[in-house]
Amino acid sequence: MGKKNAKHKAESSAEVRFIGFVESAGEDWARIRIYPEFCNGLKGIEGFSHLIVIYWLHLCDSEEERRTLLVYPKRRTVNVLTGVFACRSPTRPNPVGICVVELLKREECSLKVRGLDAFEKSPVIDIKPYIPRIDSVEKARTPEWAC
Amino acid sequence: MGKKNAKHKAESSAEVRFIGFVESAGEDWARIRIYPEFCNGLKGIEGFSHLIVIYWLHLCDSEEERRTLLVYPKRRTVNVLTGVFACRSPTRPNPVGICVVELLKREECSLKVRGLDAFEKSPVIDIKPYIPRIDSVEKARTPEWAC
Repeated sequence: MGKKNAKHKAESSAEVRFIGFVESAGEDWARIRIYPEFCNGLKGIEGFSHLIVIYWLHLCDSEEERRTLLVYPKRRTVNVLTGVFACRSPTRPNPVGICVVELLKREECSLKVRGLDAFEKSPVIDIKPYIPRIDSVEKARTPEWAC
Repeated sequence: MGKKNAKHKAESSAEVRFIGFVESAGEDWARIRIYPEFCNGLKGIEGFSHLIVIYWLHLCDSEEERRTLLVYPKRRTVNVLTGVFACRSPTRPNPVGICVVELLKREECSLKVRGLDAFEKSPVIDIKPYIPRIDSVEKARTPEWAC
């Protein structure tokens, strides 16, 4: 382990490395480009119909937004200050977004997906296969505004 | 925006800040402690029955594990090298774990939850409310070994 990591552990932060980025994002589908040095990590991904994409909300990566803890969620019809951990606002201490997408096609180091709610050029941090047994809670309760 | 962030953007990494940690992890429930300076971000979280916890797999934060792209998933009965993005191995370029948990109780800055698959002392990066409309895909297809 490098000195840098050891330092991170004693501190209150860590380093995330970008493994790829959102190459294009359209209404019907999006393309995620994984950098060649991480491409081997995709082996076997075709076996899954859905993926969880974890990405960096680079447009919200400012000190001001990272210090914001209360927001007015867009979906709320009544303006109520809500904690960032109680909504999906991109403004939050760590501008990390997650999105469940349908995998349409893998082409070598790129993934054509449907349902990605991310801007073009967003760096990608991780891809995980979606496993209903652990990821799907069909009847989870939410406040009405968040349904 | 600070100089540090500007540098990160031009580079290939970013800084995640720990907002809390797993204080205790038992078989029946676990407790997540949010640091006081982030506690306001929990406002309104009681309205949700389930949460997505994003945490740092600190025990896998070594250069060797972060360079690993192929693993033998534990659940596979036949040994087949599988890409880390096609399984939920904690060994991956970014040791980021996600877990859907049931929120049992909020007590000020701590969350008592059920179903957290994390070790004690794991740093927490983010908490998001679970919203079935976007997070639940009951019939997602997986290979048999991953069901």
